[in-house]
Amino acid sequence: MKKIIECVPNISTSDPRTVELILEEIKKTINAFLLDYTFDDYYNRLVVSFVGNKESVLEASLNAAFKALELIDMRKHKGQHPRIGAVDVVPFIPIKNVTMENCIELARKFGETLAEKCSVPVYLYGDAATKPERKDLDWIRKGEYEKLAEMMIKSERKPDFGPAIFNPKAGATVTGARKLMAGFNVNLGTADLKVAKKIAKALHAKKGGFSNVKAMAASIPEKNITQIGMSISDFEKTPIYRVFELLKVEAARYNVPIIDSEFCGMTPLKALIDIAAYYVKIGNLTEDRVLEIAVQNAIEKGKGESNS
Amino acid sequence: MKKIIECVPNISTSDPRTVELILEEIKKTINAFLLDYTFDDYYNRLVVSFVGNKESVLEASLNAAFKALELIDMRKHKGQHPRIGAVDVVPFIPIKNVTMENCIELARKFGETLAEKCSVPVYLYGDAATKPERKDLDWIRKGEYEKLAEMMIKSERKPDFGPAIFNPKAGATVTGARKLMAGFNVNLGTADLKVAKKIAKALHAKKGGFSNVKAMAASIPEKNITQIGMSISDFEKTPIYRVFELLKVEAARYNVPIIDSEFCGMTPLKALIDIAAYYVKIGNLTEDRVLEIAVQNAIEKGKGESNS
Repeated sequence: MKKIIECVPNISTSDPRTVELILEEIKKTINAFLLDYTFDDYYNRLVVSFVGNKESVLEASLNAAFKALELIDMRKHKGQHPRIGAVDVVPFIPIKNVTMENCIELARKFGETLAEKCSVPVYLYGDAATKPERKDLDWIRKGEYEKLAEMMIKSERKPDFGPAIFNPKAGATVTGARKLMAGFNVNLGTADLKVAKKIAKALHAKKGGFSNVKAMAASIPEKNITQIGMSISDFEKTPIYRVFELLKVEAARYNVPIIDSEFCGMTPLKALIDIAAYYVKIGNLTEDRVLEIAVQNAIEKGKGESNS
Repeated sequence: MKKIIECVPNISTSDPRTVELILEEIKKTINAFLLDYTFDDYYNRLVVSFVGNKESVLEASLNAAFKALELIDMRKHKGQHPRIGAVDVVPFIPIKNVTMENCIELARKFGETLAEKCSVPVYLYGDAATKPERKDLDWIRKGEYEKLAEMMIKSERKPDFGPAIFNPKAGATVTGARKLMAGFNVNLGTADLKVAKKIAKALHAKKGGFSNVKAMAASIPEKNITQIGMSISDFEKTPIYRVFELLKVEAARYNVPIIDSEFCGMTPLKALIDIAAYYVKIGNLTEDRVLEIAVQNAIEKGKGESNS
C-alpha cells in the first residue's frame, strides 16, 4: 500500500459489546487495518486507530459510525471526557504519500454521508474547518451534548452538514483533517482532582501553558489516583520531554509524585526520538537512522528500483 | 524480503577513495541494501551496515572484503581503535525471520571463502566461536596487528580458517554471528585522555563496569575533546539510559561536561524505547505500539491474509 491515511474515531461508549461490534465493522473492511483501541469507564470513551487507503478508510469509518449511532444513546451517557455526540470526533490524518487536502476531502465525504444517512448534524474541524473558529474542536464542542440543543439555535453553530435540528439519541459529530498528534497521559499519585486540575491548567494552551497542548485532569477512582490527559497537536514544536519536565515542576510544587505515563493510541516515532535525544543528548538522530525504519526504506527503495 | 540479515563490516581505513570502492561492492549487489557507513581519521576505521537475504549478504560481504584486502596495507595503518587486520571484524546479525544458526553458517562460509581466496587467517567469534574464549572479540584481538605474528605461533591462537602464517599486508580477519547490539558514543568536554580513560574504565565490563558494556576512550583532536566509545552487547539487559546516567555520575566527579552523544551505526528501536520509557516513565511501551511499526505490521499481516 503506497498511500496511507490514519483515522482515529472517538466514540462515546465503554460498553464491551458495543466496542466489539464497532471494531468488527473496521476489521471486516478490505485494506483497512486496525492498529489500536482503548476504552475505559472513567472517560466512557472508545478511541480507535486504524489505517488504510482512501477508499477503505472512508468505508470503515462510515460503517463504524453507523454501528455506533445504532447502538449508543447519548441520553444515557456520562463520562469525564468532553463530548458532543455518540460518534464524537472522527479525524483523518495523512501518514504516507497523502496530502492534507486528500484528508479534508475524506472528512467532507464522511460528514456529508453520515449527515444524510443518519440525520446527524456534522461539524468540520481542524484543517477541514469552514470558518477559522471551527478549527478548534473545543469551540465546536462548547456546552457539550447537554447544551447542544440550545447551542445549535445560534447561527454560528449551524452544522456544516445535516439538519440544524437536535438529535437526542446521536448528538452531533465532529469530523476533520489534522496532522498526526500525540496523546500522552500522566498518572499522578494523588486522588485530589483539584490539585490535578491546577497542574493541567499550567500546561494547557488557553490557560497560559504550551501553545500546542490541551491538558485535562480526570479521576481514576479504581486506582484512587488522578490523570493528566494531554493531546499535543504539534509534538515537534512542543516536544513531550519539555511538557513532561514542566509537569514534573508543577507536580513537585504540590508534593505529588508522578506514577507513570502512557501514550494514548499509537506512539509517533519522532516523539520517541525527541525524548531520547533530549535526555541522553543525542545530536544527530533522525527517523531514517532507526534500524527498523532504515531496513524498511532500503527494501522499498530496492523494490522500486528493480521495478523501473 | 521475508528473511533479513544485517552485516556490519569494520574495515581498517578512512581513506575516502578506498571507502567509496568498498561501498560500491555492496551497492552493486542485488538484494543487498546499504543502510549506513561512518569513518573518521581518529579511529581510522570504516564501519558499514547493510542488510539483505542470506545469498546477497554473503556475496556483498565477500566482495567488499576482497576489495578492502586489495586496497589496504596494514603495514601503514595507525588508529586509536583496536584492530587486527584490514578486514578487521565482520559480524552477521539476525534481524527478521532468521536464526542465529543461519548467521553462524554465513560467518563460516564467509570466513572459509576469504581464507581460501586471499590467504588471510580467519578467526570465528561470538556465537560462531569454536572455543569458549573465542566468543570474546578482545581475546582474539589481543596484541592487535602489531603482535599478530608472535601471537599466531601459539596453538590457542591458531586460525579457524586459512594458514597460521602471518600476512603482513592483510593481518587477520575476525568473523562471527551475534545479536543486534548498540554502538553508543559520548563526547566529553575535555581534551584530557587520562580522565576519559578513567570514565571508560568505570563502565567497562572487564574492569568492574556493566556486564554488557565495552567502553574505550579516544581523542578527537580536531575538536579538542575526548570520546567514550561504547558497544553494548545486550542493550535490553543493560539499557542505555543506565549506562548514560552512570557516565554522567563519573564525568561529574571530574567536572567534565557531556557535550553530546550519538549512536554509532543504526539505532535499534528497542534502545530508543527504553530510553524514553525511563525518563518520562512510560509504563507500557512496546515496539508494536510505535505508529510506523504498527502500520508496517498491519499491512504485512493484511498481505499475508489476502494471499492465504
